[in-house]
Amino acid sequence: MENPVLVEVTRGELVESMHRGAFALVDGDGRLVAGAGDVDRPVFPRSAVKLLQAIPLVETGAAARFGLSEKDLSLACASHSGEPEHVRRAAAMLDKAGLDETALECGSHWPGEAEVSRDMARRGETPCQLHNNCSGKHAGFLLTAAHRGEEIAGYVGPNHPVQVRAKAVIEDLIGRSLNVDVCGTDGCSIPTYAAPLRDFAVAFARIASGNGLEPQRAEAARSLVAACMAEPFEMSGTGRACLKLMQAAPGKVFAKTGAEGVYCGLLPELGLGFALKIDDGARRASEALAAALIARAMGDGEPALAETFAAMANEDLTNWRGTRTGALRATLPRS
Amino acid sequence: MENPVLVEVTRGELVESMHRGAFALVDGDGRLVAGAGDVDRPVFPRSAVKLLQAIPLVETGAAARFGLSEKDLSLACASHSGEPEHVRRAAAMLDKAGLDETALECGSHWPGEAEVSRDMARRGETPCQLHNNCSGKHAGFLLTAAHRGEEIAGYVGPNHPVQVRAKAVIEDLIGRSLNVDVCGTDGCSIPTYAAPLRDFAVAFARIASGNGLEPQRAEAARSLVAACMAEPFEMSGTGRACLKLMQAAPGKVFAKTGAEGVYCGLLPELGLGFALKIDDGARRASEALAAALIARAMGDGEPALAETFAAMANEDLTNWRGTRTGALRATLPRS
Repeated sequence: MENPVLVEVTRGELVESMHRGAFALVDGDGRLVAGAGDVDRPVFPRSAVKLLQAIPLVETGAAARFGLSEKDLSLACASHSGEPEHVRRAAAMLDKAGLDETALECGSHWPGEAEVSRDMARRGETPCQLHNNCSGKHAGFLLTAAHRGEEIAGYVGPNHPVQVRAKAVIEDLIGRSLNVDVCGTDGCSIPTYAAPLRDFAVAFARIASGNGLEPQRAEAARSLVAACMAEPFEMSGTGRACLKLMQAAPGKVFAKTGAEGVYCGLLPELGLGFALKIDDGARRASEALAAALIARAMGDGEPALAETFAAMANEDLTNWRGTRTGALRATLPRS
Repeated sequence: MENPVLVEVTRGELVESMHRGAFALVDGDGRLVAGAGDVDRPVFPRSAVKLLQAIPLVETGAAARFGLSEKDLSLACASHSGEPEHVRRAAAMLDKAGLDETALECGSHWPGEAEVSRDMARRGETPCQLHNNCSGKHAGFLLTAAHRGEEIAGYVGPNHPVQVRAKAVIEDLIGRSLNVDVCGTDGCSIPTYAAPLRDFAVAFARIASGNGLEPQRAEAARSLVAACMAEPFEMSGTGRACLKLMQAAPGKVFAKTGAEGVYCGLLPELGLGFALKIDDGARRASEALAAALIARAMGDGEPALAETFAAMANEDLTNWRGTRTGALRATLPRS
């Protein structure tokens, strides 16, 4: 049974391309409020769970020890765009523990946003590991290892205490063990574990509601959510979808993208968590679907905001001369 | 009934993302030699039919009048990368009719290949319409209009003789009328018409075999195919998939990408034509599928080449540190 078409791209009167996928919107009791597709099929959440992986940074006391600001915490949960502000902050975080770029093991890449990469080229720069979109997360990992007096080298390995802690947090939040069968290597070299979409939605719903979490963990998670919602630019970057989604409803939405068409997030006031995956991995589709799902979650309670997010889920597409050629639209099945 | 999964992306032991689609491999008699999915659903072929749209450039005598070389003809069929060679050649083609960049109506865009766009940024350049990936095609349109003494302005409009001729060629080759119901506006502002994948495969099979084409048209088409196969760089660019596909079997494969996950092509010695569409529009999938389909077409007749193309359909994926994380693999259903 295939997943439903959730996002369409039109040209003229026809549907030109289509994206299938699944999503789960869950409340604090773990109940599926809305869903579509196979929410039990294992999905690699990729960067969408960076906030969960950052919980030990706070829980161990590392964040307090090194005096991390909300902007720092947001960067620790980030898939940032590698803009000068992001690069500077990642370096400054490492410096708090006397570390520098050479301690990172995430690898280097040019910024994914074309204009950001062109700006670097204009300045005659080439990227180092600080430009890696995960460098803030990795800085958080290194600060935690430094705080705990652990070996720095090899912190990306699955058996390193940093990764063991991150895995344990996710297991606790999703209520499921993650074994080697569902383990892959992420783009930044840390392990990534696949689990049902539904489980990730439950994890974020637990953070939103506080249900089922030991109080210290609930508070650590909430402080990270608050930091990201207060400082969404550090978590993302100029023109990024996560920035637009979170700036549309400050303090009411946390939404985090993951590679290969994933989004996870939560609505703290509504006590809801969500997770979605576009089968083919397309970011244009996951972004539109995230907006549509947030609109659904806002529902009757926040009609003006629901309308704002619904509009973001239905975008006119234009060509190189600015002529409208069609639309990109996410449509949730009735449920 | 949904299209089959034809391309998968794996991470660890799991399938992380999947791409559905359809393809048709057709012989000179219009018979489906191999196929999958709904080959009768209308598809916008986008740039994959640029060669068909360039046939009038040759048929009208414009190409001969302006002394176009094989490199020029290849550029007239191109979705080029906007590298200096492409830009120079497009300008030179326009100059043959006393025209310049201001005559173009395709719009401007930065080169899609990140390193090409960064190189422009390093040189302090910004793109003009010559950098548009369609500028060679549009130069061909303008040369044809100039040769015929037609109004230059508005050559992208659906009722302009240039577009009327292009539409008529496609209708002749697919054996079907294209009406306004299936018309959309392309990225470069010309009209684009949707038709079944099967029909586009038949069109290219006719060119490969010569069957069902009036001799002058068959010869015009063959000269364009020959030019593209002799000069695939002009048609594409550095590191592009079309370049790799065509350089893997010089003179034996014509393969042209189209936006939103399309490929069309032909194998002249085998008299076969093909067309494919990835439902979600992903280029990584259309490129892998094109390689797999060409491998199937090579079949038993060219075992060494079949193996070369099969290898291109199954690519290791690595992360930012060069560690293998999984694979991108196209798999054709048995047929």
